[in-house]
Amino acid sequence: MSILDNHPDCTALEAEGARMLALLERLWPIHRSLTGPGIRETLAILGSSIEGFTVTKVASGSRVLDWIVPEEWHLRSAFLEAPDGRRLCDVADNTLHVVGYSTAVDEKLSLVELQPHLYSLPDQPDAIPYVTSYYERKWGFCLSHRQRQSLPQGTYRVHIDATHVAGSLDYGQLVLPGRLADEILISTYCCHPAMANNELSGPVLAVALAEWLAARPDRRFTYRFVFVPEMIGSAAVLEAQREHLRAHVRAAFNLTCVGDERAWSFLPSRLGDTYADQVARHVLRHAVSSYDVYGWRDRGSDESMYCAPGIDIPMVSIMRSKYGTYPEYHTSLDIPGNVVTARGLAETLGLHRLLVETLEHNCTPRALVLGEPQLGRRGLYPQTSIKGSTAPVKDLLDLISHSDGRTSLLDIADRCERPLWVLLPHLDALVSAGVMER
Amino acid sequence: MSILDNHPDCTALEAEGARMLALLERLWPIHRSLTGPGIRETLAILGSSIEGFTVTKVASGSRVLDWIVPEEWHLRSAFLEAPDGRRLCDVADNTLHVVGYSTAVDEKLSLVELQPHLYSLPDQPDAIPYVTSYYERKWGFCLSHRQRQSLPQGTYRVHIDATHVAGSLDYGQLVLPGRLADEILISTYCCHPAMANNELSGPVLAVALAEWLAARPDRRFTYRFVFVPEMIGSAAVLEAQREHLRAHVRAAFNLTCVGDERAWSFLPSRLGDTYADQVARHVLRHAVSSYDVYGWRDRGSDESMYCAPGIDIPMVSIMRSKYGTYPEYHTSLDIPGNVVTARGLAETLGLHRLLVETLEHNCTPRALVLGEPQLGRRGLYPQTSIKGSTAPVKDLLDLISHSDGRTSLLDIADRCERPLWVLLPHLDALVSAGVMER
Amino acid sequence: MSILDNHPDCTALEAEGARMLALLERLWPIHRSLTGPGIRETLAILGSSIEGFTVTKVASGSRVLDWIVPEEWHLRSAFLEAPDGRRLCDVADNTLHVVGYSTAVDEKLSLVELQPHLYSLPDQPDAIPYVTSYYERKWGFCLSHRQRQSLPQGTYRVHIDATHVAGSLDYGQLVLPGRLADEILISTYCCHPAMANNELSGPVLAVALAEWLAARPDRRFTYRFVFVPEMIGSAAVLEAQREHLRAHVRAAFNLTCVGDERAWSFLPSRLGDTYADQVARHVLRHAVSSYDVYGWRDRGSDESMYCAPGIDIPMVSIMRSKYGTYPEYHTSLDIPGNVVTARGLAETLGLHRLLVETLEHNCTPRALVLGEPQLGRRGLYPQTSIKGSTAPVKDLLDLISHSDGRTSLLDIADRCERPLWVLLPHLDALVSAGVMER
Repeated sequence: MSILDNHPDCTALEAEGARMLALLERLWPIHRSLTGPGIRETLAILGSSIEGFTVTKVASGSRVLDWIVPEEWHLRSAFLEAPDGRRLCDVADNTLHVVGYSTAVDEKLSLVELQPHLYSLPDQPDAIPYVTSYYERKWGFCLSHRQRQSLPQGTYRVHIDATHVAGSLDYGQLVLPGRLADEILISTYCCHPAMANNELSGPVLAVALAEWLAARPDRRFTYRFVFVPEMIGSAAVLEAQREHLRAHVRAAFNLTCVGDERAWSFLPSRLGDTYADQVARHVLRHAVSSYDVYGWRDRGSDESMYCAPGIDIPMVSIMRSKYGTYPEYHTSLDIPGNVVTARGLAETLGLHRLLVETLEHNCTPRALVLGEPQLGRRGLYPQTSIKGSTAPVKDLLDLISHSDGRTSLLDIADRCERPLWVLLPHLDALVSAGVMER
Repeated sequence: MSILDNHPDCTALEAEGARMLALLERLWPIHRSLTGPGIRETLAILGSSIEGFTVTKVASGSRVLDWIVPEEWHLRSAFLEAPDGRRLCDVADNTLHVVGYSTAVDEKLSLVELQPHLYSLPDQPDAIPYVTSYYERKWGFCLSHRQRQSLPQGTYRVHIDATHVAGSLDYGQLVLPGRLADEILISTYCCHPAMANNELSGPVLAVALAEWLAARPDRRFTYRFVFVPEMIGSAAVLEAQREHLRAHVRAAFNLTCVGDERAWSFLPSRLGDTYADQVARHVLRHAVSSYDVYGWRDRGSDESMYCAPGIDIPMVSIMRSKYGTYPEYHTSLDIPGNVVTARGLAETLGLHRLLVETLEHNCTPRALVLGEPQLGRRGLYPQTSIKGSTAPVKDLLDLISHSDGRTSLLDIADRCERPLWVLLPHLDALVSAGVMER
Repeated sequence: MSILDNHPDCTALEAEGARMLALLERLWPIHRSLTGPGIRETLAILGSSIEGFTVTKVASGSRVLDWIVPEEWHLRSAFLEAPDGRRLCDVADNTLHVVGYSTAVDEKLSLVELQPHLYSLPDQPDAIPYVTSYYERKWGFCLSHRQRQSLPQGTYRVHIDATHVAGSLDYGQLVLPGRLADEILISTYCCHPAMANNELSGPVLAVALAEWLAARPDRRFTYRFVFVPEMIGSAAVLEAQREHLRAHVRAAFNLTCVGDERAWSFLPSRLGDTYADQVARHVLRHAVSSYDVYGWRDRGSDESMYCAPGIDIPMVSIMRSKYGTYPEYHTSLDIPGNVVTARGLAETLGLHRLLVETLEHNCTPRALVLGEPQLGRRGLYPQTSIKGSTAPVKDLLDLISHSDGRTSLLDIADRCERPLWVLLPHLDALVSAGVMER
């Protein structure tokens, strides 16, 4: 069962899914890395459709929390030339062919000398692996194991035209103000080269969600979106805004691996019982037929930074197929069509809209009368009582019976094992009848 | 396994069961409704065997909590006359034939015109449903679906001789004082017409329990019984005595659906972990072989009033087959013999006596010596130690080891997974030996 | 899977197991009882290999907590003489043949007159039961049921040369001081005659553990060992040192039934969630493939005294086959070879060493940097990132992410479902790198 089945906005969401996929494909060929022109170009495209999107620069060599911002990596070209002169592993074909952050090289080597610089996956002979080496300066090429095994003996020319230069780390940010100063933080990362689910799906979902929120006539919460290079980018955000975020963020979500149709997954916050955890679990429980539950130990992204002791921003991840669990992960097989689909993106957008509605509409209802109110004289109760006649008012009665002015609507919904959004019309009716206040 | 098997008072309880059933059958033909002469006659009979039973009147139009006391309904006669002159659906045969609170009517109608005023259950073609319409003034007849389908075309005379008149809502009350001002509240409702399990079983159990408690030489708790019309009656009790009840009631029980032999059921309080919940669960766990556990969401009776936020009286329901779950519920099939039996009533009385014993004997034992006492020299330990010889003193030793002066006997019994009543003789022995105090 | 498989000290532990078994066999023939020369001789042997071992005497008739120290029992000889002159049930063959604490007797009786003084186990016809009668003065003999059934009619001479004399209750004690005044209490009992698992295994394990701890260059905790007669001995220890022990003991362990290879068992403290419970469960969970979990209700030894309300010393038992659960328990079949083995003792010693390491190395680590530290530039992170490359640093990252300065290493290990001892090298590395403190 898909979240789109019987969805009132099914057609609109499907159109959004197609737009998201088109944006993903537009971003695809850009040579992205932690820093450098690729991520700048990516941020420019991501921000182009949303007013208020800003880019912050942090100079190379700066300390952000415990991390030091590296030099920018400018990659111009990279390929191997086979003994017969054929060009192999050309980044013009696929950015993944070069080890990320490789140093420049232009030499002739025998195959034996070349081998230690080659990376392939024997278990997935058709996949080019995604490899980086940010902290040890070296160079290398990535290729499918099948191609590697077919390389003939002989002399190879290895060519990488790349420089490491002082510059900046760049990250994007968008704040959509709400009635409250309290914030919902949505973080995603855009440093990965040519891969779709992990990771271009997060940034394109963030853009679609931001456009939808920006168009909303009224927002209760302030929504903050950040688009960062993974880990060091969230360290940079926290270096600059830690105290503000600690004071204002009520719930935070890392958008990653959100584009396929295979599964739904949940990764909790470090503490596991924050408001973000509760809202995410509630929405998943009621919006999808089943989801995989991971633990904090299964994490592998920016939540390590945001949830760290002393920072303690309550961040969770609602994902489709979690990073590290699907075979195409971190290889050239993680491509649109094969993994990410327009429908997958549309479904995840639909779920995140429900998440926003849940956040926006949660409140603390309070009954204004003592005891169960006499609903019959207010037209809120079946006029004729016969076996089974009260079934339609069960949710209404449950809502009343828990509205003690101390229990949130979300807690009430959880106790009743009902989606919060199903209780909302009942709450409206009771407020209109004067027997309840929000 | 029945609670009566091996019960020391088995014969006495069986006799009580027969008496309870006889009282139920005596109450059966009375035309009961929320208000009016039927409930007054019912209360008069219920109270006739117990000294101190009082009836309170609340005038029509009075506000009780959020509710407004309706006018009394005086039903004198009601029937249909078929085209061939036969009298059908006569309340002289079964009170259920008329929709409760029907307005007066005396007209001639075609079958087509009559149909919107008829109520039947296609799924239970032999049952007359129980139907009321307290908040929309209308009239109607209830009949078996089989009878409805056999009605010939033609002209019917419809006749209901009933009036709605200013009067009162009446409820019964009995207080049996104990050593403590702390109260056990037992509430039951007697507004339902000709049905046995739901609901004449509750009132007759309440009477049997009250007679037994009244005859008890010593009571620790004060026991308060109330006999009300459902919902509006408990609102009336709470309007008058809310502050007193909030301050004094330690545990409350709604007696409903207590007369069949098919099942045992438990419905918790709203908070789910009150003293009433603990005692009821303890008694059920140890006195019956299994019981059905319901949640607060499955409620459907006066607990909605008593447990409401701001009132918070800890009320639970120990039932046999719960209302709404057995096929005869709210139909003419809920009759003695078919559903309620003398044996069923006797078993439930036996269980409620255990409930009272548990309430009366719970205490907070405290060991008067440090460490495990030397029971051997007090004759409380097997003189000769051989493999297995300490099995008979296991409960005794467990009781000692938990008697820290802060843990109730009920909590100790729960930790030991033993019935409280099995620990009582051990407690007596230890108190006599001077190593424990209550 | 045995704890010795792949154990770094496997050979050393196996040698220790053989030494422990030799000590057990040396103690075997001594006539032990609660008091008297047998227990004194036993304590002398147990204490001979450890410096600082002391023996405390408490005079007969003294009150210790609620108990009164009995007279000493001096048994010189005991046997039956059959009608044909053969000597039967001679304690020179097996101490179990006489009922413990028997009065003196020297009479001639018919078999019929003798029978009430005989004890055997019809269900275990080859086993001599262990029987005592400390609080009722009588005499008796224990024998296998098979032997009992073969006794011919005729006149038997019964002979017990024993006296009850004023003297003392004796218990042994050893304190190994540590850096902290906080204590780990290890209690074991040595009043049982010729039985191996229950009970000579506890005292010999205590000696082996004490020798190992005494040889340790540094101890964080102070370790206190006590060797007592069961129950009354722990009452004597508590009478003398209760306030000191309550103030200083952080965790206590009763060593009993620790010598077989059949099972691992855990008996919790009365409160069930003390530090002793946590450490013991942690070690069992990670060091053995499975273990049987008992409840406080299954207790049967000195924990009844130590954990009693008002004393509340947190004592648990880590056992192999628990007393009362294996067929040879409290019979002449509980012998080395049949039940206790050198390998069983060695394994249990190995586990208790892990228990000590866990106690000694637990701490409260605190990250010295905000957010996840940049491990790459410190050589603590794989230099080349490729699918799967972070698996080796998972424990390291988990340790960091929970080190908030409030959570113990043991709690962190429990959260990560990893043994504490596996995290220790990671903690060392992080402390050395300056990003963490203990």
